Amino acid sequence: MANVKHMKWWGWGVEGVSFHHDDKPYLVPFVKKAIGVDLNAPADPPLVLEDMPIPDPMIGADLLAELTSTVGADNIASDAMDRMVHTYGKSIRDLIRLRAGDIPRIPDVVVYPADEAEVQAVVDTVVAADAVLIPFGGGSNIAGSLEAPADETRPVISVDLGRLNKVLAIDEESGLARIQAGALGPDMEEQLGSKGWTLGHFPDSFTHSTLGGWVATRSSGMQSDKYGDIADITRGLRVVQPGKVLVVRALPSTSTGPSVREMILGSEGRLGVITEVSVQVHRIPEERVILGYFFPSWEAGLAAMQEISASDATTSITRVSDARETQFSFATRKKGKGLSSLVSRGLMKVLQHRGWDLSQICLSFIGYEGGKAHVARNKAIVKSIVKSHGGIVVGKGPGALYDQKKFDMPYIRDYLLVRGAAADVSETAAPWSQLQTLYTNTVAAVNRAYDDIGTSGWVMCHLSHSYHSGACLYFTFAFRHDGVDPLAQYDVVKSALQQSFVDNAGTLSHHHAVGVEHAPWLEQDISAPGVHMISGLLSSVDPKANFNPGKIIAK
Amino acid sequence: MANVKHMKWWGWGVEGVSFHHDDKPYLVPFVKKAIGVDLNAPADPPLVLEDMPIPDPMIGADLLAELTSTVGADNIASDAMDRMVHTYGKSIRDLIRLRAGDIPRIPDVVVYPADEAEVQAVVDTVVAADAVLIPFGGGSNIAGSLEAPADETRPVISVDLGRLNKVLAIDEESGLARIQAGALGPDMEEQLGSKGWTLGHFPDSFTHSTLGGWVATRSSGMQSDKYGDIADITRGLRVVQPGKVLVVRALPSTSTGPSVREMILGSEGRLGVITEVSVQVHRIPEERVILGYFFPSWEAGLAAMQEISASDATTSITRVSDARETQFSFATRKKGKGLSSLVSRGLMKVLQHRGWDLSQICLSFIGYEGGKAHVARNKAIVKSIVKSHGGIVVGKGPGALYDQKKFDMPYIRDYLLVRGAAADVSETAAPWSQLQTLYTNTVAAVNRAYDDIGTSGWVMCHLSHSYHSGACLYFTFAFRHDGVDPLAQYDVVKSALQQSFVDNAGTLSHHHAVGVEHAPWLEQDISAPGVHMISGLLSSVDPKANFNPGKIIAK
Repeated sequence: MANVKHMKWWGWGVEGVSFHHDDKPYLVPFVKKAIGVDLNAPADPPLVLEDMPIPDPMIGADLLAELTSTVGADNIASDAMDRMVHTYGKSIRDLIRLRAGDIPRIPDVVVYPADEAEVQAVVDTVVAADAVLIPFGGGSNIAGSLEAPADETRPVISVDLGRLNKVLAIDEESGLARIQAGALGPDMEEQLGSKGWTLGHFPDSFTHSTLGGWVATRSSGMQSDKYGDIADITRGLRVVQPGKVLVVRALPSTSTGPSVREMILGSEGRLGVITEVSVQVHRIPEERVILGYFFPSWEAGLAAMQEISASDATTSITRVSDARETQFSFATRKKGKGLSSLVSRGLMKVLQHRGWDLSQICLSFIGYEGGKAHVARNKAIVKSIVKSHGGIVVGKGPGALYDQKKFDMPYIRDYLLVRGAAADVSETAAPWSQLQTLYTNTVAAVNRAYDDIGTSGWVMCHLSHSYHSGACLYFTFAFRHDGVDPLAQYDVVKSALQQSFVDNAGTLSHHHAVGVEHAPWLEQDISAPGVHMISGLLSSVDPKANFNPGKIIAK
Repeated sequence: MANVKHMKWWGWGVEGVSFHHDDKPYLVPFVKKAIGVDLNAPADPPLVLEDMPIPDPMIGADLLAELTSTVGADNIASDAMDRMVHTYGKSIRDLIRLRAGDIPRIPDVVVYPADEAEVQAVVDTVVAADAVLIPFGGGSNIAGSLEAPADETRPVISVDLGRLNKVLAIDEESGLARIQAGALGPDMEEQLGSKGWTLGHFPDSFTHSTLGGWVATRSSGMQSDKYGDIADITRGLRVVQPGKVLVVRALPSTSTGPSVREMILGSEGRLGVITEVSVQVHRIPEERVILGYFFPSWEAGLAAMQEISASDATTSITRVSDARETQFSFATRKKGKGLSSLVSRGLMKVLQHRGWDLSQICLSFIGYEGGKAHVARNKAIVKSIVKSHGGIVVGKGPGALYDQKKFDMPYIRDYLLVRGAAADVSETAAPWSQLQTLYTNTVAAVNRAYDDIGTSGWVMCHLSHSYHSGACLYFTFAFRHDGVDPLAQYDVVKSALQQSFVDNAGTLSHHHAVGVEHAPWLEQDISAPGVHMISGLLSSVDPKANFNPGKIIAK
């Protein structure tokens, strides 16, 4: 079998690693109070692969033989594990459906091509057979971008890019690297880092997502303020289409009509299989610091981030949590470490004396990268802005902790789900002037949704990814589900979030893509003529919808 | 008649303003030596409108009546002047064709809608009649994006956006402004500036081009290093399509599939009529400085620009001219002013003593904007990089002069053309590692082209618009034409440039768009599948090619 690492078929991350609360003494009471769930109660049993109602593969012998001869018998799989791994992404909907045995259309076969030539042969074979091809990277998507339509009657082939994982070349003079699309974040950074370079792209999914996946979904990383979103980072592309390869050459900028590069970005596999990406890479900076800050209120935090974005400062990270997310961070602290020293020691008393409402404290992280003088100067500019909004610097400790733990958050969802709580994330972007209203209305909408389904729930938010004209707001929500139809409950909450986004000048997603999860809001976001344009583009490349059908646009 | 200002129908800029050499004592001998043209010889006579072989409008009475009732009799024109103004852009090909009376398909009528509703009515009327609609902004295009195909048999309606020229609203918190697409550069900056804001977009065509035109051609301005290209600046759009308006809401970033915003950017009128653009605007900076620098060679200048782009410095302009462009700048100086003080005074002797080859000096401009401390710090970083490449700072004088004169360059083309010389520009962008080779090969290709057509010619170049991964190289060329078929001669030279661009890892144009002029190189730039994708997109929106047919893609 192809030597490709996968996440757990039933949840986030690798087998043997999971979230636990034993070393977090404040979490149990916090969760009990927030959503009425007792973390010490017995958890649901783990899923067992053998119990899953997996249908036999629906693929003709000829097609199977042709695919086998293309990639070799060692690189094609139709066993239960391989098929299950490639069935869904990792949204809470996916996790709930797995637990419910709801797998109406799992891939019939998984192929692991070795290179672009094999991808081309697979593509041509699949299209000639009028079958369905779904490109698969790390499988971390939470927008439903990886699943076959439930009613798909054609054979479904998952094309796992895991063997295309090499940094092919670094153009050191241009700061450009040619990298294969299936490279996972850590593997790629290791290959780049060994030569002194970094891509600088660190989404929450970093450890389990791929370069090709980032391009296909318009990903954004936590240092995007400095390095840009993947749309900025991506300069060139190679994309296998039926009988041909689209080649977008690596260029700093161009005026060659509507941007073909930008058509592939966010295409979610519908315009072909991305095999190679030319990306901007940077020398690893002399210094890299993340400082923690406290703001007396969410309003103050937002205003400070806006002022930083309009200032002469250049930062790598601008992040501020609302009061609830700050309380959650405090509740996940370990005894005597990291945040504990801040929360426990005299600081809180001092702030109280200054007139702060401690329940409204907002924790912020701001990152700096570059030469020592550059970092020092930008820290000084930011410090002065933070101060003018009533905030204070709380030092490197919390930032270092955040930096270590930033990729662990997704594990908590699996942990909560088997303890009676459904949790997920939804994010948007909007102009600065709209953020406060969007935030207030969205929190209210989510709480109304909790009332509607008659449960206790929690919603928290942070600002990330600042731009000149606005920012990303990232909401995390969790509620005690009824154990009967948690998906119906989830739909009420998720819909409330998404509808609030588009009703309040926000987009349906800043960096999680459309998939099937967000497709109902696409027209409200980009208008009917915009949907028509995307649809026309997709049809012109893929008239029979052989490439990942149903994503972005339903039909 | 609609109160819309236009450029001269026969050349660049406004009537009464033109280039002259009387106050530039070094120019006559320079041009004589460079291309063998005597500027003191009598010039060709000016064009006379009445002499132009203008055909009668080919438009049915019904369509004309409907358009008239839509915009009102005062805002529709079919007189010779209006039609001639809207026939071509301002490339040397356009100027030569006008002088040859070569106007096979001039617009039949020009309409000046007042607002989006009138644009919608015009669009619907034109499409219902299966006529052709060509949106017109400032008319400065040099890629043939504004002309009707010579063999077009349907009525041709030029839609002049000149009355849609308002800054509609400024969202001061977000740094976003809603501006009508027909606003000319200076008018828009005046409206923004009166409230303390700037768009920061200053292409060479600034005085005679519009916001909508910039979007339609993917324009770039001379301060783009700081403010971004128009593709970065543009956040939202309103575009009238048949029976509907595409609305791209102003967002800092989004992951809604292939970017519809990026489909309109560079669409050259083929996807509808842009009526409104939401753009990023910035507070006018405390300080704005352009410093001049000398480098001992082109190689040193390029290397310094690359190092600046990879450094912690933020600059607004990075520009370096090759030795020939530097000599041209020296030759256009006035006695005792600006550059003269540098060229004449002891500096040249000093440099010679240092071992510089004075014929290889390269003049550079680097711009800084922001607070005083920010400007000071970035000047210091750049100074150290410049020094490490053997360059020297020559102060504010040349920069201030450049800043005053930067929009005057296009006038010189008209001046040269009537004195026996054809001149134009061609620009590209490529990765840093490719720039030197691209430059060397392109200069050689142009000189070979001059040999092929048996004439004396000149080619010079500057780097502008630095990016992380590469830069724009901007070539200016001029040659003594034969007065018999200058267009045939021009084609040889222009083709040599364009072919060299795509053969040397460059794009067909960094910011002048495709039009018809660059369309032959599109497939070599973005590959056949890329052309197919653009073509599919255009056809899906405009199946009968009513919108500016023949641009970007020939059919």
